[in-house]
Amino acid sequence: MGPLRIDPVAEARRHWEERYGDEPARPMAAVTSIMRAQQVLLARLNELVKPYNLTFPRYEALVLLSYTKHGELPIGKLGERLQVHRTSASSIVAALEQDGFVVRTPSTRDGRATLAVITEKGRAAARAATQDLNDAEFGLDALTPDQHELITGTLRTLRLDAGDFVA
Amino acid sequence: MGPLRIDPVAEARRHWEERYGDEPARPMAAVTSIMRAQQVLLARLNELVKPYNLTFPRYEALVLLSYTKHGELPIGKLGERLQVHRTSASSIVAALEQDGFVVRTPSTRDGRATLAVITEKGRAAARAATQDLNDAEFGLDALTPDQHELITGTLRTLRLDAGDFVA
Repeated sequence: MGPLRIDPVAEARRHWEERYGDEPARPMAAVTSIMRAQQVLLARLNELVKPYNLTFPRYEALVLLSYTKHGELPIGKLGERLQVHRTSASSIVAALEQDGFVVRTPSTRDGRATLAVITEKGRAAARAATQDLNDAEFGLDALTPDQHELITGTLRTLRLDAGDFVA
Repeated sequence: MGPLRIDPVAEARRHWEERYGDEPARPMAAVTSIMRAQQVLLARLNELVKPYNLTFPRYEALVLLSYTKHGELPIGKLGERLQVHRTSASSIVAALEQDGFVVRTPSTRDGRATLAVITEKGRAAARAATQDLNDAEFGLDALTPDQHELITGTLRTLRLDAGDFVA
């Protein structure tokens, strides 16, 4: 999909201001900006990790696993941490297993749970993709360091309020 | 899914700073913030429009249609404007049709294209949902008006750079 010829957020805001006034138009524009920014960013990040046979959600799963002490997490827990439903977590892990980046194994602690365990190949792919993402400033190189901090700080308030985590 | 006990963005940032330094950790934290904020916001917005048998993406489609001169758009065009693939646009329209919010009709201008046309029932649902969303400040009531503007302005730079629209 090519770029639109007009800023869809500015256009929606104009409609909102005409019908409902400036007040409700302001948060509407902010919400729509977050939604659209997420979509264009995800496309860009998927492109950046594609050479490693990864998508950004699969990359995130690998990174999470690589942080853990034994390189493993129950799939349910992985889904919680990634904010995705169990079925999505399962398909992410299945895709990673197909490429040899993780293996699935029954948990010894909980017989019903399945663990995703990162392989050496998975760690290498995560490292290489990380290098490229770091070099590309995770697709945010159009923004200044101050703007990065501003986004992180402002959205932290929002995430806390919306129940992403407890402070 | 309940809230996590620690801020996942802060935790990822700590790992990044340890391994790669402060520089790459900053955009990584900002990107992860945008991704997670989008997910918690979408859940909240879906909840807000649920009483009207809508999801937020379906609500967005109705609003877009209601802006047009004749209340109609080709489904392909609707998808472009919503930043979703044709198949997603088709299933959004199919769901809206099932509830009587739109009807599908062949385009008289282009025989191969199908138009989505908003119904009176669809307009009423969009208006009622808009009232609730405006009252809830689109889920962004934890932020100040200045923070709303800051998000919109900063993400505009990003969206422009990432090809969401041309200035």
